[in-house]
Parts: sequence; C-alpha cells; structure tokens
Amino acid sequence: MADNAKVKELVSKCMHAREMAYCPYSRFPVGAAILTAGGDIITGCNVENASFGLTVCAERTAIQRAIAEGHRKFSAIAVTCDIKDSFVGPCGACRQVLIEFGTDWVVYLTKPDGSYKETSLKELLPLAFSPAHLGN
Amino acid sequence: MADNAKVKELVSKCMHAREMAYCPYSRFPVGAAILTAGGDIITGCNVENASFGLTVCAERTAIQRAIAEGHRKFSAIAVTCDIKDSFVGPCGACRQVLIEFGTDWVVYLTKPDGSYKETSLKELLPLAFSPAHLGN
Amino acid sequence: MADNAKVKELVSKCMHAREMAYCPYSRFPVGAAILTAGGDIITGCNVENASFGLTVCAERTAIQRAIAEGHRKFSAIAVTCDIKDSFVGPCGACRQVLIEFGTDWVVYLTKPDGSYKETSLKELLPLAFSPAHLGN
Amino acid sequence: MADNAKVKELVSKCMHAREMAYCPYSRFPVGAAILTAGGDIITGCNVENASFGLTVCAERTAIQRAIAEGHRKFSAIAVTCDIKDSFVGPCGACRQVLIEFGTDWVVYLTKPDGSYKETSLKELLPLAFSPAHLGN
Ligand SMILES: [Zn+2]
Ligand SMILES: [Zn+2]
Ligand SMILES: [Zn+2]
Ligand SMILES: [Zn+2]
Repeated sequence: MADNAKVKELVSKCMHAREMAYCPYSRFPVGAAILTAGGDIITGCNVENASFGLTVCAERTAIQRAIAEGHRKFSAIAVTCDIKDSFVGPCGACRQVLIEFGTDWVVYLTKPDGSYKETSLKELLPLAFSPAHLGN
Repeated sequence: MADNAKVKELVSKCMHAREMAYCPYSRFPVGAAILTAGGDIITGCNVENASFGLTVCAERTAIQRAIAEGHRKFSAIAVTCDIKDSFVGPCGACRQVLIEFGTDWVVYLTKPDGSYKETSLKELLPLAFSPAHLGN
Repeated sequence: MADNAKVKELVSKCMHAREMAYCPYSRFPVGAAILTAGGDIITGCNVENASFGLTVCAERTAIQRAIAEGHRKFSAIAVTCDIKDSFVGPCGACRQVLIEFGTDWVVYLTKPDGSYKETSLKELLPLAFSPAHLGN
Repeated sequence: MADNAKVKELVSKCMHAREMAYCPYSRFPVGAAILTAGGDIITGCNVENASFGLTVCAERTAIQRAIAEGHRKFSAIAVTCDIKDSFVGPCGACRQVLIEFGTDWVVYLTKPDGSYKETSLKELLPLAFSPAHLGN
C-alpha cells in the first residue's frame, strides 16, 4: 500500500510511541502508529488504570487521538510490544475499533528489533460485525 | 464437537437468552449460550449503558456469569442477533474474552430463524494476543 | 433498607463470591452481591483479561448476571476486596453501571473481616450522568 | 485554580472539541479539554463504536491523547455536551480515569451556551478506589 519509506517511518514512530506508555500494572509497554489517508502519522501508547477494565490499548489511543484531530480515513497501522519471538496481532477489541473506520487497513506487526510482518484487518477479523450491521 | 442434540439445545438457549437483553439504546438484542467442558449451558444477553462504553455484549455476559458460577473450561458458544441475511461473528472484544479461556472454542453463528453456521475461535481470531504473551 | 439478617446474608455472600474471582493479572480478588427488589441475591466476581481493558469488575459481573436472569430492580449491593485498613467504594465504571438501574442503591463496603460501612449510590456518584439524559 | 482567562480558554476549547465527535449511534456529541500542570490544553471528543462497549468518552480521549503526548500531571478539565437544563458530571468511568492521574482535578461542567459550574474530582468521586490501593 504505502511506499517503503513511509512504512519505515510508520514502524519507527510506533516504536518511539511505545516509550510514552503508562503501564504501571502490566509493565508491558505497547506503541502504535496510524497512517491516515492523507499521509499523516498519529501515534498512541497504552494507558492503564487501577480499575483494569478502564485500560486502553495503544492502537485505540492512536485512533481516538486521530479522530479528535479530525481524521476519518486511514490506510495502515503499525504496532509493537515486547514480544520478541513471534508476531502478535492487536487484541480483539482494537481490531473492532479499527473496523469502525474502514475495512482496508494494512497492519504491520512489529518486533522490538524493528522487523515486521505485514497483514491486514480483513485477515485479522474475518466474519466481522461492523457498522453496516447496525444500519449506519 | 458436541453431539447434535446438544448443539440444538445450545442454539435454542441462545435464542431464548436474547429475550432478556437490556438494550434501550441500540434496540439490537443479542443472545449467547456457552457450553462448558462439563456439559452445562450458561446464557447471556447484552446489557447496555447510557455511557455507551460501559455496555457489555451477550457473549461476555455469558462468560462472566459462567466464571462467577465456577466454570473455567468451555467447548462452544452460540450467538444470535437480528441480522437475517448473513452470519456475523462476535465483536472483536468478545473474541478476545473467549480466548482468555482457551483456544479451542467452537462458535455457532445463529440467525433469527435458528439456522446456524459453525466456525471456530481459531478462525475468528488469527495471530491472537493471548494470556501466554503476558507470561501467565 | 433491608432488615439486618438480609444485610448479613448479602455481606456474607459477597465474601464468598470473591473466592470465584479470575484475577491472574492483578491477584486482587473482588466479590460482589446484589439484592434485588424481590429479595433475591445475585453474586459476581472480577473476571480479568490479558488485554486489561476487557477486564470486568465484580460489581458489573453481578449486575450483568442479574439482568441475564431477568431482574431489573435492585435495592442494595455489597462489595469486598483485600483492602483492610479503609472502606473503599466501587470504581467509577461500576458506579455508572449501578445508576443505569436506579438511583436508590444502598451500598455496603465490606472489609475482609466482614465489617462494613453503609453508604449509597447517591453519595458515591453526585451530579451523575444517567439514562434520563439521553432521553430514555 | 487557574486564572480566569485560562479557564475561559479551556471552556472554549472543550466546546470546539465537541464538533469533532464521532457519534453516529447516540448522536450525542461531547467535548472535553484538559489543562496540564504545565499550562498546555489537550482536547478530546467521544469516539463511538458499533460494538457499543468499545465507545470512549470525550474526557478519556483527551486524557489518553495527553498521555501519548507525554503529559503526566494535570490541574483541570472542562466538559460539555448538549444538555441545556442542568450541569451534568462526567460518567463514572471517566471519573475513574481522571483519578488515575491525581486527585486534585478542578472540573468545569459546561452548558452549550458556555456557562459553567466549577466542581472537583474529590466531590465527584468520594470514597474512591485509586492506584494507591493496588500498591502502585
Ligand atoms: Zn487492544
Ligand atoms: Zn461483543
Ligand atoms: Zn469497578
Ligand atoms: Zn465518560
């Protein structure tokens, strides 16, 4: 989808975003970076809470921030955490929040060393429940 | 997985559970029924909230109820809602809550007329982030 | 509100419910017990998730379970956790879920030794946003 | 707390933030603006989801955005929505997310006409469960 330099920038920014994580409970920092349709990059980190259920993941922080800044169309997201030995996708909640804003996301799962695997939201969330099902 | 009579019972109970839904905001009732490893069936419905983010889906209501009743191992879940023209999977958040309690779930997506499609959590949540990734 | 024997039963059941908690991440078990308008008692425990934001508190588990069982009117809730040196209220999310089902809740904050403090949802959630504000 | 001009700016910015709301399900736009200890203002709006439970309020969007931008200390928040005839506080979930980052928040509840009522998180969340209770 995006050109190679843009993907590198996206991956690099998600790794930097991880450093902003507020995660005193899990000590599991996560970073995310979103590429908007217009070419902007918006980052996010996980923000935990003593009432664990009020925790929000890095991917959702990035999306919510993007929406608050006026973006509505997106093309890709890169995510990274401390898992070194495999490529792990976003949690299911984040996949659902991605699909709220389109089905054509490219997803870059990034290891701490910067290597990444390219996948897509369509692969990650098959048989998805989406806004269309509520008649919106 | 389960024998045919048990699947029929599971599907039937998820349809009845839908009638308990508290959904004044979406007017979109959903029902779920979980089959435990021991053969018990636990049902749930969606429970909405004026602060929408505190809404919980039928699937999660069923799982939380099962946990509160002491169950920890499960083999299947049936879900139904008002969507007539396609089989729709649980939202991503519910898929993540299912995987917290095992990867081997059979999932029955059920239409209002009682017809259902069999799938599995492995199909629905590829490249999943799971408890093992936090070292638990 | 309730007679003394009923309060004792409610407090006792919330302490037992705590033993069902699924809390591998926080290791902070919480129990709750709800008294319905009809005099039934429904219990709940916290149910955590590797994606912390999908965690649900004991109070909400109890309410969701009650709704799934057909209850809609409630008069009291008792909650207990491991905090020994002070009486701590439910998290804000749970207070909001309580008010969805009425403003007249009596709340019993219970210590591990069984001693409790009586308060109310009105005290715990002043200037509340409630279903009425959405026109429901 | 803040000088009068700063409060006016905060209130004004929360009203503008409301215009960014993504709320196709509730059609109830909400805006929030946070004042950091350093004098910066960060805004947020509600971001809804077809799976209602994945909705996030304006106040939380603002806080998560602030955290992602590196802020950790805050002094005030202003919130506004369409309710004209009374001053309504943030939902309980948002109150809990506020207290994660300090107990000394001043809270400005703002009507659509720009008039506001000053309160505080201490008033809004008595007997709070807070990070200290988990030993953090
Ligand atoms: Zn996530
Ligand atoms: Zn769901
Ligand atoms: Zn709670
Ligand atoms: Zn809120």
